[in-house]
Amino acid sequence: MKTYINPPENLWAELLQRPLFSVAELESQVQAILTDIKMSGVHAIRNYTDKFDGVFIRNFAVQEQEIADAISLVDESLKNAIKVAAHNIRKFHESQVPEIKKIETTPGVICWQKPVAIEKVGLYVPGGSAPLFSTVLMLAIPAKIVGCKEIVLCTPPNKEGKIHPAILFAAQLVGVTQIFKLGGVQAIGAMAYGVDVVPKVDKIFGPGNQYVMAAKQIVSRGDVAIDMPAGPSEVAVMADQTANPAFIAADLLSQAEHGPDSQVVLVTNDKSLVEKVDQELERQLNDLPRKAIAERALANSQAVVLENVDDMIDLINGYAPEHLIISMENYLQVAEQIVNAGSVFLGNYTPESAGDYASGTNHTLPTNGWSRSFSGVNIDSFIKKITFQEITPEGMKNLGPVIETMAAAEELDGHKNAVTLRLKEIDNKK
Amino acid sequence: MKTYINPPENLWAELLQRPLFSVAELESQVQAILTDIKMSGVHAIRNYTDKFDGVFIRNFAVQEQEIADAISLVDESLKNAIKVAAHNIRKFHESQVPEIKKIETTPGVICWQKPVAIEKVGLYVPGGSAPLFSTVLMLAIPAKIVGCKEIVLCTPPNKEGKIHPAILFAAQLVGVTQIFKLGGVQAIGAMAYGVDVVPKVDKIFGPGNQYVMAAKQIVSRGDVAIDMPAGPSEVAVMADQTANPAFIAADLLSQAEHGPDSQVVLVTNDKSLVEKVDQELERQLNDLPRKAIAERALANSQAVVLENVDDMIDLINGYAPEHLIISMENYLQVAEQIVNAGSVFLGNYTPESAGDYASGTNHTLPTNGWSRSFSGVNIDSFIKKITFQEITPEGMKNLGPVIETMAAAEELDGHKNAVTLRLKEIDNKK
Repeated sequence: MKTYINPPENLWAELLQRPLFSVAELESQVQAILTDIKMSGVHAIRNYTDKFDGVFIRNFAVQEQEIADAISLVDESLKNAIKVAAHNIRKFHESQVPEIKKIETTPGVICWQKPVAIEKVGLYVPGGSAPLFSTVLMLAIPAKIVGCKEIVLCTPPNKEGKIHPAILFAAQLVGVTQIFKLGGVQAIGAMAYGVDVVPKVDKIFGPGNQYVMAAKQIVSRGDVAIDMPAGPSEVAVMADQTANPAFIAADLLSQAEHGPDSQVVLVTNDKSLVEKVDQELERQLNDLPRKAIAERALANSQAVVLENVDDMIDLINGYAPEHLIISMENYLQVAEQIVNAGSVFLGNYTPESAGDYASGTNHTLPTNGWSRSFSGVNIDSFIKKITFQEITPEGMKNLGPVIETMAAAEELDGHKNAVTLRLKEIDNKK
Repeated sequence: MKTYINPPENLWAELLQRPLFSVAELESQVQAILTDIKMSGVHAIRNYTDKFDGVFIRNFAVQEQEIADAISLVDESLKNAIKVAAHNIRKFHESQVPEIKKIETTPGVICWQKPVAIEKVGLYVPGGSAPLFSTVLMLAIPAKIVGCKEIVLCTPPNKEGKIHPAILFAAQLVGVTQIFKLGGVQAIGAMAYGVDVVPKVDKIFGPGNQYVMAAKQIVSRGDVAIDMPAGPSEVAVMADQTANPAFIAADLLSQAEHGPDSQVVLVTNDKSLVEKVDQELERQLNDLPRKAIAERALANSQAVVLENVDDMIDLINGYAPEHLIISMENYLQVAEQIVNAGSVFLGNYTPESAGDYASGTNHTLPTNGWSRSFSGVNIDSFIKKITFQEITPEGMKNLGPVIETMAAAEELDGHKNAVTLRLKEIDNKK
């Protein structure tokens, strides 16, 4: 790791600059595919699946028999692990469902906010070598808790036109309503516009490669909501002399193995720790099957030594990491002062991989500094909060004159008149 | 109003099509201004203010003396009305602040979600003939409740380089930290990039004309978060024989006076009501100062008669209105079945203008069908919910094997190793 000792504050942002990430250059290419999907429908998504996934798919919908077959193929130990993770994710996300509180703001004026499920949600689960069934859990469980009516899952087929059994197992376990063998831009387009058997959804969730991210960004401009802006994954670790160098190295590597554009950052007030972590990185890296990927990610990564804990906190809040591990003696005190982060892992026994899979928190988190303004996926992501207000005649008498005065001052007489007519009628009734 | 009697369901979407709204055609023009602002900074915002607002501004920051002068200029009755509205908005939004709940998902695995204020928010308040001080209340009060550190307000100056006193009064009343005389694309650009005395913010809120909306959409792609996608304002009214035709007409007009592209929709199971409302519209329209605008909006508007209440509900949920007034005998029962709407007004004594100003709910709401997937502005809009997790050694022993199994199945050995190392260390300590 590149190491910086006590860099001045005005250089922090530059030191921690993320690998450049922009989907703008892919835009015209992705836009062309989306336009084709909008125009040519099922023919287009069949052609692109043939072209990009190397398989001709006649029926994109996964059939019940395929799901039943998949269930029998998944290892019992993996099934049990998935069930434990699902339990934890469900328990934590259920605790987030907001209550309805009726508030009388003025006598006779009652307001409340009601959480209502988004009706149709589309979940994208990327393909690639490994089956990301954990993402199925993270996106479908909260959708199910709030009662989304249609929970649509798209994931690319392999060259045999199949989906990995673990994905199908997870999807049926947590209540996905429809599964489609469809990946890439063609999946995003199908869910944004509604193509063939794939319904148009109200909101699209999930990670993906740069093409998928570009497609999500384009369709979000007018067709459908999306979960959050995208960027490569990242972790920051804050550590002091009480941290365990082997654990830190393992945590940094677990992030680095995601992809060559992943970024890992270590911030510490203990200079000697950096050397120990570097040694551990070297040692552990050799045993890692994804060594080549992790090595490239580490080349983008930094260790920063700052003597002062307050400076460490300021640096982290400025960086706004997706994942933050705090391996420090007073980790709860430090955590109190963190204002920009997606998900925070506290103490020496809370690795990021706990949150990636099974602690119960969501692993779909804001990257690229977006944790300054975005939350990770949570129950809110699957609901709208509709406001209601009910005013009694008494309430109108209390509040009506206020509304009239304000409407008149904003020169909106129609607004005022809607109150004046009611006040007159109430007076006449007496 | 165009009236449709019992139209078949497959025609509903077409009948209720909104006036075409797209900012795409303005994009290159607005992008050019934004690029100029990014490159030339204060010179650019000065030039555009000169060009579009017709005034040369040397110092964009409103000074304390200007605020003090403004306070003395505002009518006492308006001040009092604004204070009552602010009280109600504060009371309702305070009730939305989420509690922290610590959840033990597995023994020794504790997860929680903590609401944390977005540090810097930028509020845009449009100019024009009337001073929209109500928008100041709606955006700044929730920002203040959650504790945003910088609450920046931009609003265009008049030709004398001044801002309306009511806006300044409202801003200082509710805790805006900095006010700038800056409107249009130049305000959005300044808050997105940070220009001169205007700081770069983390999220931009507020309504505006098509240029402002286009600018918000462009900067949201990489620079800053925004509140929600934009579109013209709209109201739908559901009414039965218990509704008051004069009230309905007044409510429709209060929406129609917003702008010629506003849309108003009346859905009723009482055919005779449509005629009565039409007569009232004609009568009330003549007294309206903004008659010309309202007339044009009414030309885009529809009355739909459907015999069946369930059909009325389905039509409304399909339309997904920004504002929904339910003037029906069983309004609470009907409201229970509404799944797509921004804000709902119940019964005969709850006009939309109550929510626009003073009931306590927010008036910044999703238009153009976005209420299918977006909430109106609320406390959530000004916070991130950061997740935390703390795992004890006992918790790691309980959950670690689950994480190991899942990570191995996803072929992420680095993720697995971060757990394995910790489990070994825990075992060795015994």
